Parts: sequence; structure tokens; C-alpha cells
Amino acid sequence: MNRLFDHPFPEPSATTGFAGNRIVRDAEKRNGQSLQTALADESARFHVFCGAKAIVRKDDRPGATLSRNETLVFEPDLNAAILLGSDEAGPRIAVPSRLSAEPAEPYKLYDFRSLLYSSSVSDEEAGAIAQAGSLLHWHATNRHCGKCGSPTAATNGGYRRDCAACGTNVFPRTDPVVIMLAVRDDRCLLGRSPHFPPGWFSTLAGFVEPGETIEDAVRRETFEESGIRIGRVRYHASQPWPFPHSLMIGCHCEALTEKIRHDENELEDCRWFDREEVRQMLAGNHPGELKCPPSKAVASLLIRAWAEA
Amino acid sequence: MNRLFDHPFPEPSATTGFAGNRIVRDAEKRNGQSLQTALADESARFHVFCGAKAIVRKDDRPGATLSRNETLVFEPDLNAAILLGSDEAGPRIAVPSRLSAEPAEPYKLYDFRSLLYSSSVSDEEAGAIAQAGSLLHWHATNRHCGKCGSPTAATNGGYRRDCAACGTNVFPRTDPVVIMLAVRDDRCLLGRSPHFPPGWFSTLAGFVEPGETIEDAVRRETFEESGIRIGRVRYHASQPWPFPHSLMIGCHCEALTEKIRHDENELEDCRWFDREEVRQMLAGNHPGELKCPPSKAVASLLIRAWAEA
Repeated sequence: MNRLFDHPFPEPSATTGFAGNRIVRDAEKRNGQSLQTALADESARFHVFCGAKAIVRKDDRPGATLSRNETLVFEPDLNAAILLGSDEAGPRIAVPSRLSAEPAEPYKLYDFRSLLYSSSVSDEEAGAIAQAGSLLHWHATNRHCGKCGSPTAATNGGYRRDCAACGTNVFPRTDPVVIMLAVRDDRCLLGRSPHFPPGWFSTLAGFVEPGETIEDAVRRETFEESGIRIGRVRYHASQPWPFPHSLMIGCHCEALTEKIRHDENELEDCRWFDREEVRQMLAGNHPGELKCPPSKAVASLLIRAWAEA
Repeated sequence: MNRLFDHPFPEPSATTGFAGNRIVRDAEKRNGQSLQTALADESARFHVFCGAKAIVRKDDRPGATLSRNETLVFEPDLNAAILLGSDEAGPRIAVPSRLSAEPAEPYKLYDFRSLLYSSSVSDEEAGAIAQAGSLLHWHATNRHCGKCGSPTAATNGGYRRDCAACGTNVFPRTDPVVIMLAVRDDRCLLGRSPHFPPGWFSTLAGFVEPGETIEDAVRRETFEESGIRIGRVRYHASQPWPFPHSLMIGCHCEALTEKIRHDENELEDCRWFDREEVRQMLAGNHPGELKCPPSKAVASLLIRAWAEA
């Protein structure tokens, strides 16, 4: 069986941002009482959210995991709480705050991207916040039943919503996205979205559509965005991506053609880069100040795995 | 770059059921007029559905791709039509029928699983039906806005629904599922769901949850269902799975423990099987009449790739 398992462990996915979550979910045991039991548990700890930002404590015990007493200050909406699971210390609960003002010192609001690179938040906490952020967004956008329009209510610790009117049960949504580095000879294909910071180039990406394999989605998205035809596709790493609830599926792929005709709605530029230029971009010493995405993005992993091979 | 692309092409995913779809989706070009333009196109061809069954023609020109005149007989609900994309002959459109009776000869209704193994339906048509079936189910369960409960309306060829009341746009849902064969020494782990046909054993599987990598989902689901701890995980193949709109992500994984404590709600049995016994199950000559899932399921691919290695 060594042929099957010849890759490094922990696998590349484990080194992406938001992958540090170590909460034990016990998904099969969730039921209608799970949340109330956890809320009553003295040892419960909380992640508190204002919209798509998390409250982080910035003192000599920095972190995003708050005690019950700390949490109560932020007027938590306990009816909207979610049981993420538990760790060795007890239940871990996500809860939105009702506060509209910025929290007072030593607390600070972090958007999910910023907390990935904050020294005040551990990789484990960033992972818990990705789990929580995805679920909170799903609840906010599923307050009504898609079938009949009646209000729905959360159950199973926040892992299901039920419609009392028509009996529909809905489950949290996770959107698979392919993100891929196309390579040919000694060059790779990077594009620039109009939303990127100045100088950034990254891998192409797009949602997997119903009725596609991962490999077919990689080939379709690359062709639609760049005009490049793809042959082989190789999975490299995945990443939870709470914007709002995606699963990034990172692949390397083999370009069969060279001539780029990029989709000008999606990309403002798309080019082939040689390995030496990409190494400069990764090292931050590119003469034209071009850059790759930061280290915890799966795009960066895909580019580094190729550039450093 | 040969190190990156050392696997067979076409890849294992291409040999799964529902992976034969060759429709060109042109996803970036969909707009509010796409469907009407396609419906007006003389060359359009149709896949017609009665609930979660597809109409198949069983004569000397068998198939599931119907002409406009054939389609009209089945009282298509053109307001609920979806533009799947196009092939060299023209647009391909999915449409639900308003008929409640069984269609007359030479037409027959096939559920999606049966048509995978029917000689009347090509792999390409089965793929188109997976795409269509997933989308039709999504529309049926998203007639109202999850945010505000108001009715939503389809646009972009059926690839978006809009809420006029609150401005929300929603996109088709695809649920990533991990499905994995755990192996240890010369044995693999198979379980039996109470819903399986008699004698069947298959790989374990479960939904990827928000905030998980693929590898973490494999480890969590295997542990929750069987009590077995997993180390390395290796992606093997993916499969579109229209029940109702999943993406099966098939992996091999390395069991670190041996003692099984299976979840009795999920599985009525779970055991280690040695390679010789699995080969008998695949060949259909197991002395106890145990069986593996049929050949086009990604579960079967995972089992065969290991048993025949």
C-alpha cells in the first residue's frame, strides 16, 4: 500500500489557513437538545461575531475564545448560537453579538482574512472561526423555507433548520470551488482579478457546477477564464474558505495550449510566468513589484509547490 | 513537471457514472436572455423529467435526448426549463413534464440510478441528466427566498434565482461528500447501511461540513461511523451524484487502528475484508454472496483500485 500513500503527512491541506480546527464535532450525535445542554455547561467557551467579523482579545492572554462572562458583555443572541463541538476543556459555541458599536479595549473586531495573519489568534481558533462564520452566514440566509416560504427554526446544535409548515429539513451549505495552477513546460498561468490588491497575480478559480467532476470543473473554468485547454489534473490540497462557505479544492493542471484569450469580465490580465519570475514574486523581490497571494491561501501553496519543485 | 502529472489520463473520475457529460456550459456567458434564445433555436434538444425520473426512448433509436416535437407530447413546463449548455448540434435544455401518467410506448421513465446501467442511454446522456436532475431539484426547493420568504424567479438559464423583494441572488447548490476506502496492511474497511440491497458492503461516506478540509472530513467521518482512526488521505476520483446534488470526493485512506466500534444508526455492520475476499465480491463469486457496489459508482472504483493493485 505504500504506492497509495506516498505523500507527506500532515498533508498540504493541513498547512492552509483555516485548516487548524481541532474541535470534535460528534456530528452523528447532534440532536434537538445539543445546544441547550452545551449552553448550560459551565465549561463552555465562545466565539463571538459582529456580522462577518470576530471579536479578538488583545491583551497578555490574546485570543478569540471567550469565557461566558466575557461573552455576556457583548449582548450575545443566544437564540442564534451554534454548537461547533467540543475540545478537551468543554463545549465550543459560536454566537452573534447584538452590539452595533465597536467593542471596548482590549477587544477588537477582525475580519476573517485579517485574523489568519494576526499573532493574537491561533491556527486552531482561526479554524473554529471559519467553521462558525460559514454556519452563521448560512443561518442568516436560510431563515425561510425555500420550498414554501414559511419561517424555519434551527435545531441539532445549528446543523439543521426545519420548516414546521411543510416539514422540510435543510442542512448547512458548503460550496466546492476549484482553484488551479495550470503549468506548461517551465511556465505557469496566473491571472489578475480587478478586485486584487495592486501587483497581485494568482491562480484561476471557480465554482464546481452540478453534474461535474473536479477535473471537468478545472478544465471548464480554466478554458472559460483564459482560453487555455487543460489535460491532466492533479489534486494538491483543500482549504475551508468562509467567504461565505466554500471548500477550495486546489489542483495542479497541465496546459495543452499556449494562446491566452482571457475573459475580460473576470480578469483584467492573464499571463504565463516563468519559474524564476514566480520565485521573485514569492520572495517579495520582483523588479516590477508583482506579488503572489499570501502564504496561508491554497493559491500560494499551489504556486510554491510548483515553483520550488 | 512529470512528477506532478504521473497519473493516468483520462483520470479515474472520467470512468465513473454521470461523468460522461460533454455539454459546453459557457458559464461566464449566461444572462437573462440565454434560456429564451435557446428555446427559440430550431436545433434545441431536450431532456424531459417526471420528478426524479427521466424519459427515455426505447426503440431502434434509443436515447434520452428528445426533439422539440417529441418533447411537446409530454406537456413540458417551459417556464421551469433550464439551459444546460450546447453541443455541436445546438442547445441542450432540461424541462419538467406536467404529465402524471406513465409515458406511452416507446417512451419509458427511468430513475437516475437505473439509467446509468441502461443500454438505451449513453454515458454522455447520463451525464447531462445528472446535471439537469441536480438543477431541477434545486429549483424545486428554492422557490422562495431563504432570507425574506418572498417568491424567487429563475434567471441566467436556470443558474440563478433572484428575489425581487430583497434583492438576494442564489446559485445552484452542490454538496461535497467524502467517500473513502480505509486500508490497513492487506485489509480494507467496508460497512453495510440498512438501506443497502442484501449482501452489499461498501465504503463509508459523509458530507463535508463547513470549515473542514477534505482530509479532515475523511478522518472525522471514518471515526464517527467506525471508530477507526485515519492518518494519510489520498484523493482518487470524484463523481457527480444527482441524489439530489452531491459531488462525491473519493479517497483512499490509511487506518491507524483496527478495533471497530460502528455507529449503529448509520451502519448495521462494519468489518475488515482481506484482498482475496474483496476480489471474490467484485467478481461475483463470493461464497457467502457478499457484493460490492456496481461498477460505475466511485465506491467500486476505490475498492477495485485497491483490490487490483
